[in-house]
Formats: sequence, structure tokens, C-alpha cells
Amino acid sequence: MLLIKAGGGKDLNWEGIAQDIASHLRNQQAVLVHGANAVRAEIADALGIQVRSVVSPTGVSSVFTDQAALDVFLMAYPGLANSRITALLRRKGVNAVGLSGVDGGLWRAKAKTDILVREGTKTKLLRGNLTGRVEEINADLIRLLLENGYFPVVCPPALSHEGEIVNTDNDWAAAVMAEALNVKTMVSLFEAPGLLKDPEDESSLIPSVSGERLEDYRVYAQGRMTKKLLGAGRAFKGGVETIYWGDGRVKSPLVAALAGKGTVIRRA
Amino acid sequence: MLLIKAGGGKDLNWEGIAQDIASHLRNQQAVLVHGANAVRAEIADALGIQVRSVVSPTGVSSVFTDQAALDVFLMAYPGLANSRITALLRRKGVNAVGLSGVDGGLWRAKAKTDILVREGTKTKLLRGNLTGRVEEINADLIRLLLENGYFPVVCPPALSHEGEIVNTDNDWAAAVMAEALNVKTMVSLFEAPGLLKDPEDESSLIPSVSGERLEDYRVYAQGRMTKKLLGAGRAFKGGVETIYWGDGRVKSPLVAALAGKGTVIRRA
Repeated sequence: MLLIKAGGGKDLNWEGIAQDIASHLRNQQAVLVHGANAVRAEIADALGIQVRSVVSPTGVSSVFTDQAALDVFLMAYPGLANSRITALLRRKGVNAVGLSGVDGGLWRAKAKTDILVREGTKTKLLRGNLTGRVEEINADLIRLLLENGYFPVVCPPALSHEGEIVNTDNDWAAAVMAEALNVKTMVSLFEAPGLLKDPEDESSLIPSVSGERLEDYRVYAQGRMTKKLLGAGRAFKGGVETIYWGDGRVKSPLVAALAGKGTVIRRA
Repeated sequence: MLLIKAGGGKDLNWEGIAQDIASHLRNQQAVLVHGANAVRAEIADALGIQVRSVVSPTGVSSVFTDQAALDVFLMAYPGLANSRITALLRRKGVNAVGLSGVDGGLWRAKAKTDILVREGTKTKLLRGNLTGRVEEINADLIRLLLENGYFPVVCPPALSHEGEIVNTDNDWAAAVMAEALNVKTMVSLFEAPGLLKDPEDESSLIPSVSGERLEDYRVYAQGRMTKKLLGAGRAFKGGVETIYWGDGRVKSPLVAALAGKGTVIRRA
């Protein structure tokens, strides 16, 4: 089984991704997990709601999610993005079913209402963060859909163990899904050729990384890429063997990534 | 099997509806179809997008759906409303799965891009209406979920036969679902005690209606209620035997409606 993670950047070539899925995954079970960050930013902007980015004491950046931000999140992820991606895939002949982590208790998360954030040289406690980390998934629901010929198109939010809707990190959730579904191969598509030595220089691609040395690459992974590395670490712990990071903007993003055109990370 | 339709008004008692479903439908298969009109209006208002109401030559009012309106529709229906209702039901112990008509090709509609509308004494042709009428549903997907212990929570949009996302009339779609799922009993909850002789007078409840005389009641059904009557007619044609219309604002909306506290419409 293949788990495909596609980022939420505005330049992702969704036509190409959908075409790749339609053409190349006919005889293989696969699940797609997608983001919607650009759509979210667009809606927040149109509504005049400021997206508040915070940085953890260990340097991981994320979005602080109050009620207004969570509402925008729902409008963007299960609302606009998941519906559009599911419809696009269906037009290509893929029997897609859109699901969020809420549906059927698909993604169950431990709430992290209070978080420590770094502001300049200070560390501050922020409360009321409607966020959580996915700890378990309803693999039965995904298997039920796969065994009956459906292609699950999954996005956040998750449900906390208390049953509240929470924003959650997609890369981590995808890794937890991979373990529960016994996935050996993951692909992650985003707006860069792969892991870069210099994020400003697209020619500085790191073509391969050993999973054992993931920590050493933290120095190259800035901002959101840090989460992708943490997610990769979680995926390897869960039994994933190979992760392909690839450029979601090119003509055939999935095919190119699986051909090793981006960064290939092997566990061994 | 019971099909529950709940309107999208802001005063619907969702806590009560969810509690009724949790307490009273443990040993019965059921499907919920819901609206999100109030949420849609709120988002449109916040975004400064005007919802354009139109009236057909036969006097049926609906919303004209251009691309901006469809985006708002997606934010409201599968985005905010479906996620929140699904999460609420899960907190009550119902194994809810949210789906829109897009998912798995659940609702397939004939597109009605060009529509005739009445403006004063004139009839005008409007083009570019992203709307359709549901003609068939993927009953297999609903049955698959029901047989595996899930409670489907369904909302528009639908997919046109060409694969485009289209706004659609919920009452009609629910009736088509009822036929495909061999449903004999439907409940429809909204912001009124039932069908009223005088829409301004909540004490003018019509307690029962014969399905054969539905057309005679068109005179009492104004605005959105017209669609409910048309939906009821479609439901009876599809084999439904009893439709309970009830007040979605009361303490136990579903229980009260099934006890005949609103308007009971029988086919015979």
C-alpha cells in the first residue's frame, strides 16, 4: 500500500497529481493525505482573520489555533480543498471518497491546549490552542473503503480523545496512519524539489538521506520542513521503509518522486 | 431504515437532535441529511458576498450559485456544518461519518446551468448556475457504512454527471436517497412546528396531510416550504410511506416529530 502526502501550497500541480494517481495506481491500494495551507491563508485573509504563527522552544513552527482559526481551518480543509480534490480525482476516474480525521473517528489526537512558544529570547505559555497530536487512527474504516474499491482522500482536522475538533500536524498524522495500515512506502509532495541544503537554492537538492541520520539533517530543514523530518522519523519507527520527497509542482509529481527525482530517504 | 433530514436554520437544536439519535436509534439503521443555510449566510456576509435568491416561473425560490457562491457553499456545508455535526454526534456516542454528495459519487446530479427566473412580471434566462438536481445516488456506499456500524451524516453539494461540483436541493436529494435505500419513514426537522396554514402564525399547524392531496397544500407552502412539498412528492413516488415534519427547535426534536407533534404526511 502506498501513502501519498501532498502539501497545501498554492503551486502544487493537482491536475498532474490526480492524473498520476489515475494512471499509475490502478492495481495498487493507496491513500492520499492532503493539506490546504494556501486556501486557508486565502480565506483567513478574506475574512480579515490573522493566522498566528508560533515557534516552539525547539524551533518547530506551527499555527496557533483559536476558535476563529479553527473555523477557517474547517472551511479550507474539509470544505474547499477536500471537496475539490475529491471531485478532481473522480473526474479522472478515481473512485475517491473524501474524509477528514473527524469522520468515523479516523484521526484521534491528544489535545495540546497549552503550548510553550518562543518569542524573541523569551519562552511563553499560550492557552486555548485547539490543536492535538494524532495518536491512533481508525484503520478499519480505511481498510473497509480500500477493500471495496474506494480511494480515501484524507485531511485534518482530528478529534481529540475528548471529542473536540482539533488542528493537527499532517505529517505526523500521515506517519501514524502509515504504521496502522502497514504502509512500507510513502511519498510526500511539496513546493520544493526535495530536501535542500540551502532552502533558497533549488539546485542544492540532497538526493538521498539515510533514515538513521535524519537528525543530522535538521540543520537543513527550516520552518515547515522540520515537521516533515519529524514525521519521517515517526514513519520509520512505525515500519515505513522508504519515503520519497518530491516536487509537487512538476508535470508528473508522483511519478517523478517515485522515480527518485527528489530526495529518497531509506530507513536502513 | 429511517432517513432524517434536518434543515440549516440557526435555531435548530442540534444538541437535542444528536441526543435523540444517540438515545433512540441504537437498534435501527438511519441516515442524516443536513443543511447549513444559516452558516452559509454568515460566511457569505463576513466575506461580503451577496447570496442571490431567485424565483422560478412556477414560484419556487432558490439560490443562484456562481463560483464565489459555490466556494462559500463548500466552506459552510462539508466544511463547518458537516464537521461540527459529525463531531457532536461522535461525542454523544454515535459512530458518525460525514460525507458530502461528492464523496464516492454519492449524489449524482443533472446540471441545470441555465435557469429561467421570474423578476417582477418578466421571465429571464440566467446562465452559469452551478446547480443540479440529484438523479441517482451511490446506495452501495451508504449500505457499506451502515452494515459496518457507521451512521452516515450527509450534506450537499452533489457531483454533476460531468463531474463538476454543484449545489443541489437537499429535500429532493433526500427523497432520491430514500428510494435508493428502500426507506419507508422520513423525518424532516426545520424552524417551524410543521406545515402551517399561516406561516406567520405558529398555532396554525396542519397536523396531518394525505400524500394524495399534496398539491392542494402548495397554497400554504411558501418560499422554502415549497421545496419540502416537492421533495415529499418525490419521496412518495419512491416508495416512502410516512413523512414526519417537525420542529427542530424543541427539546427532543426527533422524538417529538416521530410522536406526531408536527405534521404527519401519509402516502395512502
